[in-house]
Amino acid sequence: MCRVMQMDSILERSLLYDFYGELLTDRQKKVYQAVVFDDLSPSEVAEEEGISRQGVHDMVRRCEKLLTGYEEKLGLVARFSRTKELVSQIRQQAELFRRTGDRSCVSRIERISMEIGEL
Amino acid sequence: MCRVMQMDSILERSLLYDFYGELLTDRQKKVYQAVVFDDLSPSEVAEEEGISRQGVHDMVRRCEKLLTGYEEKLGLVARFSRTKELVSQIRQQAELFRRTGDRSCVSRIERISMEIGEL
Repeated sequence: MCRVMQMDSILERSLLYDFYGELLTDRQKKVYQAVVFDDLSPSEVAEEEGISRQGVHDMVRRCEKLLTGYEEKLGLVARFSRTKELVSQIRQQAELFRRTGDRSCVSRIERISMEIGEL
Repeated sequence: MCRVMQMDSILERSLLYDFYGELLTDRQKKVYQAVVFDDLSPSEVAEEEGISRQGVHDMVRRCEKLLTGYEEKLGLVARFSRTKELVSQIRQQAELFRRTGDRSCVSRIERISMEIGEL
């Protein structure tokens, strides 16, 4: 399938859709979900929607372009992903403290939480 | 000034603009910023932009409607605000631990960080 842009993974697509999917029309959402997440073939979706196979391809490409366009403009997936990453570091430090009792873990937690505050 | 919808505070407006402002056109951004954040009078902005005072009012209202519409659909300001609130609780628990050495603070940090993971 020839794509306007290459999306790295199903995870990246899920994130983009999770964040910006509600800005698509109901029709776009339905077709995009069916092809990308439910793994239906473009032919199946085409038949169900009463449009051509090419129409399905075009709609999926259009949705991808819209979703990546929103991320290019707003960067909220990146911002949120960075936050989650830092929160996961906090959890690791808390677990490390539980195992070792090393108080410097808690200092690190404070520093990381301040970094999140600045995002 | 008659508004289409009441925005609670300059903070709420800043957040909405911070998150979704890039989805406005350059012209909308310029006028909205001038009136809402730089506190210029609609008359001043009207003169500068070569449009009517009413045109400025309408554009500001339109921007507010767009920005709150994006939040109604995507809810990312709310999601991010909740995250920040929980991160601030983590920081408080870390500070409390530093003062008291009470290990239950670190258990609370773990629980809060898991809650953030689920947002």
